[in-house]
Amino acid sequence: MTLRIAVFGENRHEKVDQRVQEIYPEGMHTVIAEALRRLLAADGVEAEVRIALLDDIEESLSEEALAETDVLTWWGHMAHDDVPDEIADRVVRRVHEGMGLVPLHSAHYSKPFTRLMGTTCNLLWRNEGEEERVWTVNGSHPIARGVPHPIIVPEQEMYGEMFDIPAPDELVFVSSFAGGEVFRSGAAFRRGKGKIFYFSPGDQEYPVYHQAEIQRVLANAVQWARPEDRPAQPVRIANAQRDWFRGEESVRAI
Amino acid sequence: MTLRIAVFGENRHEKVDQRVQEIYPEGMHTVIAEALRRLLAADGVEAEVRIALLDDIEESLSEEALAETDVLTWWGHMAHDDVPDEIADRVVRRVHEGMGLVPLHSAHYSKPFTRLMGTTCNLLWRNEGEEERVWTVNGSHPIARGVPHPIIVPEQEMYGEMFDIPAPDELVFVSSFAGGEVFRSGAAFRRGKGKIFYFSPGDQEYPVYHQAEIQRVLANAVQWARPEDRPAQPVRIANAQRDWFRGEESVRAI
Amino acid sequence: MTLRIAVFGENRHEKVDQRVQEIYPEGMHTVIAEALRRLLAADGVEAEVRIALLDDIEESLSEEALAETDVLTWWGHMAHDDVPDEIADRVVRRVHEGMGLVPLHSAHYSKPFTRLMGTTCNLLWRNEGEEERVWTVNGSHPIARGVPHPIIVPEQEMYGEMFDIPAPDELVFVSSFAGGEVFRSGAAFRRGKGKIFYFSPGDQEYPVYHQAEIQRVLANAVQWARPEDRPAQPVRIANAQRDWFRGEESVRAI
Amino acid sequence: MTLRIAVFGENRHEKVDQRVQEIYPEGMHTVIAEALRRLLAADGVEAEVRIALLDDIEESLSEEALAETDVLTWWGHMAHDDVPDEIADRVVRRVHEGMGLVPLHSAHYSKPFTRLMGTTCNLLWRNEGEEERVWTVNGSHPIARGVPHPIIVPEQEMYGEMFDIPAPDELVFVSSFAGGEVFRSGAAFRRGKGKIFYFSPGDQEYPVYHQAEIQRVLANAVQWARPEDRPAQPVRIANAQRDWFRGEESVRAI
Repeated sequence: MTLRIAVFGENRHEKVDQRVQEIYPEGMHTVIAEALRRLLAADGVEAEVRIALLDDIEESLSEEALAETDVLTWWGHMAHDDVPDEIADRVVRRVHEGMGLVPLHSAHYSKPFTRLMGTTCNLLWRNEGEEERVWTVNGSHPIARGVPHPIIVPEQEMYGEMFDIPAPDELVFVSSFAGGEVFRSGAAFRRGKGKIFYFSPGDQEYPVYHQAEIQRVLANAVQWARPEDRPAQPVRIANAQRDWFRGEESVRAI
Repeated sequence: MTLRIAVFGENRHEKVDQRVQEIYPEGMHTVIAEALRRLLAADGVEAEVRIALLDDIEESLSEEALAETDVLTWWGHMAHDDVPDEIADRVVRRVHEGMGLVPLHSAHYSKPFTRLMGTTCNLLWRNEGEEERVWTVNGSHPIARGVPHPIIVPEQEMYGEMFDIPAPDELVFVSSFAGGEVFRSGAAFRRGKGKIFYFSPGDQEYPVYHQAEIQRVLANAVQWARPEDRPAQPVRIANAQRDWFRGEESVRAI
Repeated sequence: MTLRIAVFGENRHEKVDQRVQEIYPEGMHTVIAEALRRLLAADGVEAEVRIALLDDIEESLSEEALAETDVLTWWGHMAHDDVPDEIADRVVRRVHEGMGLVPLHSAHYSKPFTRLMGTTCNLLWRNEGEEERVWTVNGSHPIARGVPHPIIVPEQEMYGEMFDIPAPDELVFVSSFAGGEVFRSGAAFRRGKGKIFYFSPGDQEYPVYHQAEIQRVLANAVQWARPEDRPAQPVRIANAQRDWFRGEESVRAI
Repeated sequence: MTLRIAVFGENRHEKVDQRVQEIYPEGMHTVIAEALRRLLAADGVEAEVRIALLDDIEESLSEEALAETDVLTWWGHMAHDDVPDEIADRVVRRVHEGMGLVPLHSAHYSKPFTRLMGTTCNLLWRNEGEEERVWTVNGSHPIARGVPHPIIVPEQEMYGEMFDIPAPDELVFVSSFAGGEVFRSGAAFRRGKGKIFYFSPGDQEYPVYHQAEIQRVLANAVQWARPEDRPAQPVRIANAQRDWFRGEESVRAI
């Protein structure tokens, strides 16, 4: 079955910041989307990758559009508050139904991610273009497939612990920075029927999403996060009659 | 240091339902609070246990009152929506700062718990007064200290899987019911600097909180959930200057 | 790439117990292997499924044979001690290198599984042909794909808690039994670069492996447990020179 | 109840290496034991701390001695193989029964720890006296109580990922090193009825155990690892008669 991916981009820094424009003249979302198309094709995965922007969010993340989205990647930073609450809640509901979510970098503070985590998602940060090394700490996780140990990102914003997230269901990557801090930079969660992979490399001021190893992680992540082929509905609340499960209803309960 | 406990009771069924009045003439909260006082004293734990009701929630769960609360137990059912959003958010913030939370039974749907979980917290249910057996599945957890294996609750509402919660950080109890269902009935979570223990036995129509083994679990849970003696503040967001941690500031960062 | 599966069968009860012979005239391993062949073909997975017996264990689980095995299912009961220690250690090493392992039912006591767990793997049991209901407790796990909730096994040996295993990395199934006990019947672990899925339904005295839903779980499990395409070697011990990771060596470290 | 602690020291480097003799003239075990005595007294915990050496291991870790030990700390490096297998297995059994174990630094390769983990426990290392920073990644864990964030160890051997352990039940500390590597340096596990806390700072060539913050972690760890007051026996294997749990036997099953 075709893997239907939406790449959400806030696309604000790209409009107002010359440095970002030079690195991403057509936006970070374009680079991410093209990398996903290219790498998924190379992996033999049939995929459709579309772009969803904050400017067209009412359409691009409408109920109908999300109902046909299997995995949503999310980059946002300066305009988290411009995402309407109803749309954030809609994304959360779709994750509960099974849609995968891949929040990137400063999306640690995005509305969908913080609502799914239930924590502040606070962290330390410093923007001095430091080297980041992304170390794999899980020997058998598909998201770490084919990446060097470590991935070296020559220049990045530092994100440091404590990172106020729930303990990840699976911790995949831990980063160190030139300044000495560490960060749980690749963290997998399951919520409802959906899978979430937070991945921190990717500040707008550095060409991180142009880097081949980072693109490999993104391609692995969307494959991992794709829904199982269950009915797209959240776990139900139901008044279950005695012996309900002896009939034909059982499979519908999950 | 004195362990300061608040026992939150919705106290609605007790007012309107004769069956509940007979079992809990002074409310479930009174039985819970007295059990905690008695058992914590027996354990040699210095504790203060106060009652907080929905009717006085503006005062009993005010900023000031919560700031002096170490662990909050929460029973609610028919009036979840009557808890103001601001107070639910205040409870969540206090958990992020370190306060323990012990949601009981139908509080799986309470505003603080669902916001901390980020999931629907849906489940199956059936109210036919079935036997519940509460099995310990964790050999070394302090919340299971001194309880029989299983605890038998003669009559209870059935809560069944799937229970739409994040995978618990520690699964302590799993229940079976006479009708055949299972339920993760004792589940421990860490969120921010706070600890949460959800415990499902305790429907208002059965004398569950009068049962000695159930009281023992509650007394264990509030001890486990008490905050570590760190500053009562959430994990911070902070712009960290290079080498900040070489100065005297480091301990304040967590 | 072809998924290379070995189905290990102890094949002792089948030789000496008439009841088992009637249910499994050609051995449990044959039924399991044929089910895997049929279902993996239906899933579009290219697979080779071979049988490995205790009687030919020196060849069927030789270094060479295991080096070409991606996933090993294991059924054993009365003859755990007849598995040579060297072969048990070899299986453990292969799991560390990336081979998947799917221990079934009484293989909770097999040498490879107990060595990988580091616990006693003790449990309660009762063989009275009780109904078992296998409930899914993980909304997004691929091993639960396409199975009813619950799977009902009409007659089974009871396995009950406490089951002395480490907390699973992912808990997929919890069973209840007619007699009231519960059991963590589907538990996923990662060890080294290998994945392990323990699945408890399947006593030799009942036709459990003939049941379609159980076969579906087995087919899901071997797909989940297949190795990532990394070099087949365990995580290394290495004296790492300063800045080793800036050269070409990095990818070989994991 | 008195907390009975045994501090196991291999005590070999101290005999043969002048540098180690200068830092630890009476052995690392003496410094650790004295720190525990002093800090537990300050915490108001009644404790007995004894020393157990490889030279007297037959007596100091005899069945009788271990039966009266609540928590065992373990430092070993060059003489892991001199620990008899029977004694390693005895330690493992005592952990299954409830004894706490705190393996330190190079004890990642000790027989008891590797048998309890079921993995190779391989890692990267480099001994160049690099700065280590020990970061807390768990906001509410008692083992991180009262320690700075980060703890700075001025000179240490580097231990780096991948560290081939099972995913910890609770990850408490992650370290970075001057050379850029990261390491899961504080990892909590539950096995059987016992608790295990692996803590990596502490190479023999540097005065790490003289450092106050490191001593604080050790004192926190032994308190966390102390057994719950259950019968000192592993989880049992038992043939459970139908309705066994309705009698007086239930509490004995765990």
